[in-house]
Amino acid sequence: MALIVQKYGGTSVGTVERIQHVAAKVAKEVAAGNQIVVTVSAMSGQTNKLIELATEIDEDLLPREYDVLVSTGEQVTIALLSMALNKIGCKAKSYTGSQIAIKTDSFFTKARIKSIDADRVQADLDDGNVIVVAGFQGVDDNGNITTLGRGGSDTTAVAMAAVLKAQECQIFTDVDGVYTTDPRIEPRARRLEQLTFEEMLEMASLGSKVLQIRAVEFAGKYSVPLRVLSSFEDGPGTLITYEDNIMERPKIAGIALNKDEAKLTILGVPDKPGVAHHILGPISEANMEVDMIVQNTGEDGTTDFTFTIHKNDYNKALDILLKTSERLGARKVSGDDRIVKLSLVGVGMRSHAGIANKMFASLAEEKINIRMISTSEIKISVVINERYAELAVRTLHEAFELENSTVA
Amino acid sequence: MALIVQKYGGTSVGTVERIQHVAAKVAKEVAAGNQIVVTVSAMSGQTNKLIELATEIDEDLLPREYDVLVSTGEQVTIALLSMALNKIGCKAKSYTGSQIAIKTDSFFTKARIKSIDADRVQADLDDGNVIVVAGFQGVDDNGNITTLGRGGSDTTAVAMAAVLKAQECQIFTDVDGVYTTDPRIEPRARRLEQLTFEEMLEMASLGSKVLQIRAVEFAGKYSVPLRVLSSFEDGPGTLITYEDNIMERPKIAGIALNKDEAKLTILGVPDKPGVAHHILGPISEANMEVDMIVQNTGEDGTTDFTFTIHKNDYNKALDILLKTSERLGARKVSGDDRIVKLSLVGVGMRSHAGIANKMFASLAEEKINIRMISTSEIKISVVINERYAELAVRTLHEAFELENSTVA
Repeated sequence: MALIVQKYGGTSVGTVERIQHVAAKVAKEVAAGNQIVVTVSAMSGQTNKLIELATEIDEDLLPREYDVLVSTGEQVTIALLSMALNKIGCKAKSYTGSQIAIKTDSFFTKARIKSIDADRVQADLDDGNVIVVAGFQGVDDNGNITTLGRGGSDTTAVAMAAVLKAQECQIFTDVDGVYTTDPRIEPRARRLEQLTFEEMLEMASLGSKVLQIRAVEFAGKYSVPLRVLSSFEDGPGTLITYEDNIMERPKIAGIALNKDEAKLTILGVPDKPGVAHHILGPISEANMEVDMIVQNTGEDGTTDFTFTIHKNDYNKALDILLKTSERLGARKVSGDDRIVKLSLVGVGMRSHAGIANKMFASLAEEKINIRMISTSEIKISVVINERYAELAVRTLHEAFELENSTVA
Repeated sequence: MALIVQKYGGTSVGTVERIQHVAAKVAKEVAAGNQIVVTVSAMSGQTNKLIELATEIDEDLLPREYDVLVSTGEQVTIALLSMALNKIGCKAKSYTGSQIAIKTDSFFTKARIKSIDADRVQADLDDGNVIVVAGFQGVDDNGNITTLGRGGSDTTAVAMAAVLKAQECQIFTDVDGVYTTDPRIEPRARRLEQLTFEEMLEMASLGSKVLQIRAVEFAGKYSVPLRVLSSFEDGPGTLITYEDNIMERPKIAGIALNKDEAKLTILGVPDKPGVAHHILGPISEANMEVDMIVQNTGEDGTTDFTFTIHKNDYNKALDILLKTSERLGARKVSGDDRIVKLSLVGVGMRSHAGIANKMFASLAEEKINIRMISTSEIKISVVINERYAELAVRTLHEAFELENSTVA
């Protein structure tokens, strides 16, 4: 008998039929002798409907009341799923975030989980119940309803798995696992059997939107094995775990493509201490998040500074940078919002030299110009012109033979 | 400065515009220096939508999960109203039944309020907030969400008014008060300035569906002055209070018409102790509610027994009564579902003789045959053929000069 936490997203519970389908899947696990905790999101579309209503009243959504409002979405789903489970003879009980005491801080709309009362859940589980938990929501020390921010249901599931010491936390989505790269770009992309938390973090943050970054971080921190599975097809999915648990590591796990970034450069800035701060300070004060940062020092006592931000912030950032340029006496400001970021991710690359070189060589062979490079222990990212995005993905997928890679 | 509890029903908060309208009304009271607690229902139609979803899963609605489900309706409204209030500069905070600790028993779907934590609300009020409370819902001792049954929002409002010792509990509806009779039948029907809890109970239970009976009982028990007002027009509405507070009583408050009942008679039952129990026992075991009961003893040692029940139960009750008749050796069973019950209600009739006589005489003048009579301290009810319903109402309204009656 194992204790498994499952999480079904909005699409998986989007209609009564789908909720009944989820109930059947859960009942099968129970019949196999497992204890099951299910975390669910709001039925797809519901959260947006609620937000539309609120926006009609006030475009500046009041955070405390926003959380009271949107948390009803998951509450509807838990009641319906619990009904569907009981209907097919599978004893089940629903719990809101408040009821199960998912204690969070008081940062409405983006609260963080502090603790969960596992005793009540464990008692109900031992009493033969499936526990249906509203994802995405919690309660602060003053009894106010909080939400964890979009996608927070994944975090709820991982947190439940952590406090209950579950054998596995299964995240059911509309894809059947994590792929070496986007199969819409490279049809030979292959589902990974396993990858590490660190790899998953890089893959997720780089645009493979299968799992919430926070949930992966959380799972890593508490060593909760995560499995990404399809709600609609049977299959083993992809297991995300620690490196120790993975026997034969391929060098590269996959290739992530991020089309959401734009690149800004300020050229010929007098090279003095604090220059990075002077350039990025105004950007961050305007609430824009910077991703890649590259600085080159020239020979004439000036420096060139390049960074990427979200495409939506491009024009605003350009305005700010022009002012900064004047103030600092820089030579020129340039920018490009027609770029993509391509990243090769793999824990294996730590112990294998030559990966970067092979990457650059493969791209050069296709005459793809690299505009920016940034590396970490487990990834190499390059910025290239967006017109080569798909070609670059396919080139690297082939060069690193990702369609063949074997895993334990 | 007064503390006032207001309650707005589903129609009054049915759209974003109406919620904004309610916010404006509340803000006006606050500007006048009053402390306001607002209780709201789900936006009209929402509860039914949720029930439809649940019914698709299981026609036998699971009570615990039903309450988790439908309580989201009011939760949506409190968040939106609180947003609307804050938007127009009126500080407000929303609370679910759980958050404000509206403790109930554990009878899901029809729970009864046991206690409310007034301290938290009072502190928030003293801090200058409008308190927006989800009607209709509470929480049991184990933290399970409960609901008070349809129309329970009125009860929530009265309970809040009772624990906060509010000056008045104002129930906003789609009518502008309680009338001497149904204005659709008698256009000269007049809005009552005041009536007593007892009168309101008789008027409400007899078909003037303005207020929930439970809420009126509750208000009477805790001496909470209730005022029925229109959400859509300004006006003083109708105040429901104790007789002591009403100066010059008219004899008659109004005329209530109930078209929902049917009449059943069992004739020639051997007149022995326990006969009423033998007749009504099987009816009540079948979960049917009996309203009027009349028994006449004949001369031959037998008795005739007549009672009324809801029209929907007529055929079922007739079947049961036929079996009872055989068992008891009665002479005959008869019934009529084409009747109405007409009641003259007024605390004043206690001290005025001749009211009943005048009622019967007026009906006789119009050749309206009375089929059944039942009286209490403050009302006289008669059952007549349904074809005379409207005529009877107009006849009595005129006979007792209700269009002219004056109140303090």
